[in-house]
Amino acid sequence: MKKINLGVIGAGRIGKVHVETLMQNIPQATVTIIADVDVDEACKLAERFGIKNVSADYMEVVNNKDVDAVIICSPTNTHVQYIIDAANAGKHIFCEKPVDISPVEIKKALDAVEKAGVMLMVGFNRRFDPNFMKVRHMVDEGKVGDVHIVKITSRDPAPPPAEYSAVSGGMFMDMTIHDFDMARYITNSEVKEVFVKAGVRIDKAIGEAGDVDTAIITLEFESGAFCVIDNSRKAVYGYDQRLEVFGSAGMVSVDNNFPETHKFYSANGVHRSLPLNFFMERYTESYANEMRLFCEAIANGTALPVNGNDGLAAVLVALAARKSFEEDRPVKLDEIK
Amino acid sequence: MKKINLGVIGAGRIGKVHVETLMQNIPQATVTIIADVDVDEACKLAERFGIKNVSADYMEVVNNKDVDAVIICSPTNTHVQYIIDAANAGKHIFCEKPVDISPVEIKKALDAVEKAGVMLMVGFNRRFDPNFMKVRHMVDEGKVGDVHIVKITSRDPAPPPAEYSAVSGGMFMDMTIHDFDMARYITNSEVKEVFVKAGVRIDKAIGEAGDVDTAIITLEFESGAFCVIDNSRKAVYGYDQRLEVFGSAGMVSVDNNFPETHKFYSANGVHRSLPLNFFMERYTESYANEMRLFCEAIANGTALPVNGNDGLAAVLVALAARKSFEEDRPVKLDEIK
Amino acid sequence: MKKINLGVIGAGRIGKVHVETLMQNIPQATVTIIADVDVDEACKLAERFGIKNVSADYMEVVNNKDVDAVIICSPTNTHVQYIIDAANAGKHIFCEKPVDISPVEIKKALDAVEKAGVMLMVGFNRRFDPNFMKVRHMVDEGKVGDVHIVKITSRDPAPPPAEYSAVSGGMFMDMTIHDFDMARYITNSEVKEVFVKAGVRIDKAIGEAGDVDTAIITLEFESGAFCVIDNSRKAVYGYDQRLEVFGSAGMVSVDNNFPETHKFYSANGVHRSLPLNFFMERYTESYANEMRLFCEAIANGTALPVNGNDGLAAVLVALAARKSFEEDRPVKLDEIK
Amino acid sequence: MKKINLGVIGAGRIGKVHVETLMQNIPQATVTIIADVDVDEACKLAERFGIKNVSADYMEVVNNKDVDAVIICSPTNTHVQYIIDAANAGKHIFCEKPVDISPVEIKKALDAVEKAGVMLMVGFNRRFDPNFMKVRHMVDEGKVGDVHIVKITSRDPAPPPAEYSAVSGGMFMDMTIHDFDMARYITNSEVKEVFVKAGVRIDKAIGEAGDVDTAIITLEFESGAFCVIDNSRKAVYGYDQRLEVFGSAGMVSVDNNFPETHKFYSANGVHRSLPLNFFMERYTESYANEMRLFCEAIANGTALPVNGNDGLAAVLVALAARKSFEEDRPVKLDEIK
Repeated sequence: MKKINLGVIGAGRIGKVHVETLMQNIPQATVTIIADVDVDEACKLAERFGIKNVSADYMEVVNNKDVDAVIICSPTNTHVQYIIDAANAGKHIFCEKPVDISPVEIKKALDAVEKAGVMLMVGFNRRFDPNFMKVRHMVDEGKVGDVHIVKITSRDPAPPPAEYSAVSGGMFMDMTIHDFDMARYITNSEVKEVFVKAGVRIDKAIGEAGDVDTAIITLEFESGAFCVIDNSRKAVYGYDQRLEVFGSAGMVSVDNNFPETHKFYSANGVHRSLPLNFFMERYTESYANEMRLFCEAIANGTALPVNGNDGLAAVLVALAARKSFEEDRPVKLDEIK
Repeated sequence: MKKINLGVIGAGRIGKVHVETLMQNIPQATVTIIADVDVDEACKLAERFGIKNVSADYMEVVNNKDVDAVIICSPTNTHVQYIIDAANAGKHIFCEKPVDISPVEIKKALDAVEKAGVMLMVGFNRRFDPNFMKVRHMVDEGKVGDVHIVKITSRDPAPPPAEYSAVSGGMFMDMTIHDFDMARYITNSEVKEVFVKAGVRIDKAIGEAGDVDTAIITLEFESGAFCVIDNSRKAVYGYDQRLEVFGSAGMVSVDNNFPETHKFYSANGVHRSLPLNFFMERYTESYANEMRLFCEAIANGTALPVNGNDGLAAVLVALAARKSFEEDRPVKLDEIK
Repeated sequence: MKKINLGVIGAGRIGKVHVETLMQNIPQATVTIIADVDVDEACKLAERFGIKNVSADYMEVVNNKDVDAVIICSPTNTHVQYIIDAANAGKHIFCEKPVDISPVEIKKALDAVEKAGVMLMVGFNRRFDPNFMKVRHMVDEGKVGDVHIVKITSRDPAPPPAEYSAVSGGMFMDMTIHDFDMARYITNSEVKEVFVKAGVRIDKAIGEAGDVDTAIITLEFESGAFCVIDNSRKAVYGYDQRLEVFGSAGMVSVDNNFPETHKFYSANGVHRSLPLNFFMERYTESYANEMRLFCEAIANGTALPVNGNDGLAAVLVALAARKSFEEDRPVKLDEIK
Repeated sequence: MKKINLGVIGAGRIGKVHVETLMQNIPQATVTIIADVDVDEACKLAERFGIKNVSADYMEVVNNKDVDAVIICSPTNTHVQYIIDAANAGKHIFCEKPVDISPVEIKKALDAVEKAGVMLMVGFNRRFDPNFMKVRHMVDEGKVGDVHIVKITSRDPAPPPAEYSAVSGGMFMDMTIHDFDMARYITNSEVKEVFVKAGVRIDKAIGEAGDVDTAIITLEFESGAFCVIDNSRKAVYGYDQRLEVFGSAGMVSVDNNFPETHKFYSANGVHRSLPLNFFMERYTESYANEMRLFCEAIANGTALPVNGNDGLAAVLVALAARKSFEEDRPVKLDEIK
């Protein structure tokens, strides 16, 4: 793998994760410049890893002639503009999910990418969790036979502030979107129809902001697979991320990760510790794999494991889900496209 | 508990289970007479347990003056008539599920029962599984808080013959009906709306007979709980019966029963044996509990744990499920009643 | 299987278990007579199962001409005399463990049995636990290859009264004797040498009575297998009965039985209920299997699954264990014989 | 934490692990120089991490004036000399286990360390496994009460070449030594007596070289705790590292680490993948914790988590174990000291 230089836009939580991976775990990658509107944040992050160039202006990343690829970790509503600018500057692009909450806008970004002939990867990190990758691999090998039912449990330890819903596009767009991508990834097929049963069970303020916090979502795939996703914004026992694939030849299931393996037997029963609490801990390894695979694809010119169309597809399902919830009926993906 | 005498109608598979329980595990109960149109079957069963009276005519059970209660284990399409006759004869009644596939017919039976002032219990045996009882108990105690999501996995090891669908009323009526009852039992609430996504994934002949073999069913309850049931007629690894209840204070889950507890570690991995294969083995203990609780309620004049209305309610949900499948839309229970 | 009539001597805890199994679960077996020095106990038990004959004198069982076999459930110090009398009367014999705490006495009993040509089975019930049988079966099949290491964990929920030690012969004779038999059963080989490291960790009164309550016991077998047994008289979490067999081709392990399969996830962790508390619950199924296999062997004249020599062998190991503890050195079985 | 410079002696397998940790995971640590008699190996390793100084002579590390501490990863028979030279040069020292196989030699090293007033840590990496640390923490908190029984299962996936035994000091010295240290760590007490039952069950060549490959080892501690270790040089299912602590208030157990969490259900049973295969994978995290804690102690002048006396104590137990095996009797530690 040849050496590549990266520029990072956005020095927030996820920006920090990617910079750390790039600087510490991928010898062939170097972060050359970091930009953030909060330039202090960019400086702190740059200093931690001995990165020389910092800016408040993302265009300095885009136009930096040493930069091979741009990592976009800024808020969702900036993604499309940054992708277009980076593509026009001939840079490869990694963009956090969702690309945007509007398919029209996403298509503008994809067009710019295509025209420029650059590569765009979207940050569906969960695909790179070793255990979920193993499941997909087993499906590909035919271990479970024809896939009949996929079950995804995806529950957060605590809801975001109610105000967040307006900005994020709501639960289907900011949270379930990962599950929609996971379902597409596991089935290797496209969603045909969505039905959502959802409501507010945890925090009224979420409902007042027009969003939901609890949902059961049924997907039908082109392949004939059914998928059911259950979501909650608040599991008191922490982050709950499970997957089950049932098919004509068997079933494979993945439980949560329990970092503490000890069991304690007392007069009260048998006790074990909770799974890892939230995504930064739970998906540490998938974030690292994701960035490594992006760098390898850029360096070697090979195909990306998740591309712009995957980013668009998940958003379309999220919109169909919202429509299904609002109209209390199954919605075909054709209605959205 | 005072002594009670029972008469059994139907000496098939489930009739045998009940006679064995009554004669071997419930000292206060005696089976006095067995009737079956196939009188040889009745004779064989009677002989095995030293029961003196046998008949080809169920009315000899109903009219036997020693009999306190009648156990109806005959085919579904005979249930209503037998219930009415037994009620008119002043006998208490245990009837296998479903009572009938028509709510109108069921109501006739319930009316006769009410008029006669006798007791009617419907055979939803899974309620008496010790682990599912424990879950209900924990819900009642408030251990899981407000119930937000109930998940029921219910998969059979092999489909019945396709012809069976016509007789049985189809998968929702003969198989999922247990899950509908379980969901009502666990939530202690009534179903408000049903949505079904189902299809034929296992055997085309099932589809040609007008039935389905694979389904994802979403229920919304009056209480606000959501429930999702996933069904398959064929799990190659055997009978799969799991339950999970998620609420504001925690989650309780019940895995399958594994009768063999050993684990084998070899160069190929870690292996354990499959769960119990089908309902006769898996639910042995619940069949015994069910019959014991019926006898106790009859002997002591106390309330039945499952009554005729429970039998009706589950059938109404099954009909709504079928309608939802046919019309590809959520169906409110109000539309059925 | 032809019908057989049994006479039971001893109507205490284990006598009740055997009578219940014989009367309720083995159609071909009938208990004809029960004797106990406390004749009230014998009467109560007889009445519960409709048994006509009761006596305070065990010789009425032994001399009852309808009786095919005698079940000896009386205190250990009566076993040898009862076996000799029953053998002289030509009855087959089932005797609870240990046969006696003196090998000389046991040999007298075995001589009488041999001379009379009757069958004698000793009550090592754990051999008939379905999961331990499965392990032995896997060893026989060669699944684990040559057996190198057997590990037995055997801990009681609470110690017996300290006075009991004097009567019982001490922990090795009343508790570990089961583990010695299990080790012989699993390896299908004879013990060559024993080393014990033991002490009093739970209750000083046990030590004052000359016994121990905690032990690590190493066995070397003729076959070359090593075995380690760890014993405690008091596990606060209940009865702990585990087995592991490690060999050249793999490992098989059996965990405790957990009757409640649910898991509860709360903010405090994941909780599951304790295993079955003590031997009457934990080994219900093995007691039933044991009695059934005894009856079948008697009825069919086939070989017994545990015989008098097994009873003697386990006692010899217990004596060697005691000697090893007292002299703090490994003791060869040859030194005892 | 202030910056510290390290010099590494030995660029073999474990040397590589430590250099990688120091350079990638501990920002305050820098490896300044690497020495190995095979200077090519030293060069390759140095180049990989941009380390400037390389030598075939370990004295260049010891005498390098920038070096604060020396990491000794060379063969066992060089340890004592290197420790003495490093101590005389005023360097702090990390030395791989065992320090030496002769207590007399170890004492020479400890004397030099004491005289020089430097710090010496011995590489018992397993103490830094997060789950074993948790168990020790629970013991310290009193969660298990008084410790009665410690059980350590420690089995390798495959034996080393038979020739290795002569060099390494044999199984007790090269393999069980980790378990002796673990037992001391968990009980926080000193071994009083050792009894070993061991033999050759896997490879005759090991026996011909005077060593064993299978063992059951019983330890009695000053605290009154008993410990049993079972060792095998060859578990076909891979590296088996388990721990169980039983006490008056409960039991805590740690199973193997299973990196793949998926379970596969097919018609043949339920399958899961094997645990991590060998120590480099299994103890990755403990090697990293170990090096970090060494650097922190050096930088802050705080106490080391494992010191030279720990290194000596484990060797004494290993010698007592060998003596017990040879003489087939329990050996008191006093006999060795």
